[in-house]
Amino acid sequence: MLRSGADFWWSLDEQPMRNIKLVLEYDGTAYCGFQRQDGLRTIQAELARAVAVITKSPANVIGAGRTDAGVHARGQVVNFRTDARMPAEKFVPALNSVLPADIRVLRAEDVPLEFNARYDARGKTDEYTMDTRPVPSVFLRNYAYHVPFPLDLEAMREGCSHIVGRHDFRSFAASGGGAKTFTREVRRCALEAGEGLVKITVEADGFLYNMVRIIVGTLVLVGVGKLTPRDVARIRDARDRRVAGPTAPAKGLCLVRVDYDA
Amino acid sequence: MLRSGADFWWSLDEQPMRNIKLVLEYDGTAYCGFQRQDGLRTIQAELARAVAVITKSPANVIGAGRTDAGVHARGQVVNFRTDARMPAEKFVPALNSVLPADIRVLRAEDVPLEFNARYDARGKTDEYTMDTRPVPSVFLRNYAYHVPFPLDLEAMREGCSHIVGRHDFRSFAASGGGAKTFTREVRRCALEAGEGLVKITVEADGFLYNMVRIIVGTLVLVGVGKLTPRDVARIRDARDRRVAGPTAPAKGLCLVRVDYDA
Repeated sequence: MLRSGADFWWSLDEQPMRNIKLVLEYDGTAYCGFQRQDGLRTIQAELARAVAVITKSPANVIGAGRTDAGVHARGQVVNFRTDARMPAEKFVPALNSVLPADIRVLRAEDVPLEFNARYDARGKTDEYTMDTRPVPSVFLRNYAYHVPFPLDLEAMREGCSHIVGRHDFRSFAASGGGAKTFTREVRRCALEAGEGLVKITVEADGFLYNMVRIIVGTLVLVGVGKLTPRDVARIRDARDRRVAGPTAPAKGLCLVRVDYDA
Repeated sequence: MLRSGADFWWSLDEQPMRNIKLVLEYDGTAYCGFQRQDGLRTIQAELARAVAVITKSPANVIGAGRTDAGVHARGQVVNFRTDARMPAEKFVPALNSVLPADIRVLRAEDVPLEFNARYDARGKTDEYTMDTRPVPSVFLRNYAYHVPFPLDLEAMREGCSHIVGRHDFRSFAASGGGAKTFTREVRRCALEAGEGLVKITVEADGFLYNMVRIIVGTLVLVGVGKLTPRDVARIRDARDRRVAGPTAPAKGLCLVRVDYDA
């Protein structure tokens, strides 16, 4: 299509393209997950809408992790390209002024044009919270899995140790993830217990689909004595989803950090 | 009205009246406060409905504290009379099975018939939470007052010290509370600070209407330097609501404990 004279002059005035990286927090309770799906309320759609309102042009928002419906984030990372001239840090109050209250931008910065929040991620940390009180806390009802049984925490910790390392994690992967390889390196799998709470933190170079939720579902079976800690290694080496425990509920999961090369 | 024969025989079979005390937790976000109001969603109405479903007869549920709209509880106490024969501890799962997920009964016990959750309360503890992060946490959006200013915590702690003791707290009372006297004994007023959080805990023999929220609103003015700690004593002694700070938002407040004589 031929450009009109006005378009031509406007193009001379065009701003250089930039790439903005955002760190986000969200309460996933009210969303059908991160990834945009026609007609459904998703984090990605809300972000794209907010960026479009602020920059006055449509944007493709790329997320580091496609969290499922009901999963939360304290440190999701996304990026989008824009030619808006606003200083990067101004995107924080600007986007927050148009985003719903359950999604907040914590930080914004300019990054090289080639940065991709998804493909450049070198590590991710997920945290899984269990509410172990006899009656579930109303304040954790959307943020924790209620496990009101006595849990053998030492056995669960030993189970965690079999998750750490570079392994084929096929036993802990739901179908539909589209991963090319099932090998991941888990750098940390740690259990912390507080008053009425158990938290399992898993840090890896990347996660397979539902990997942390299946690991937690399996560790709970260890906690209640239906599996031994050693069974976790056996399940891992079986490379068969059917031998692992159930998928723990989405609401207990929170993406807490995404790491990139400096 | 004459009793029919069937009613007469049923009355011989009547169970003795009992008094059940419940300790409750609730997320007040979705409620117009504790106290029943026609046509509005309240904690008291939900409890009365649940007790009626479980005991199959209407019940008058008496609450220790009439929390306002948006105020939460981790240790509200209520009582109701019933002739239901169920063991007291069974009321916990029974009521929770019919209550909404944002109200949970934590404990239930038989108490003497004359026990009254409101009039027998000897002390109450309220906790007020402030979120001091630059961007408000999505997870605290309904549970904390966002105060993104540098706060002089030492000055606030000194301010707290002027709240402790037996005083006329008229300066910290909203109108409409219907109290006969404004004298209350505050046994503790303590400030704790964590990462991005400030909590103020106030324990007293009882609270005037909005008392803790006005105390917090005044302490925040001390924190930002608009008042000196010593001004808190001056405001207290003025016995005039107009000289105290604003009423801090309801959502930061939580009733954490109600004490009774053993």
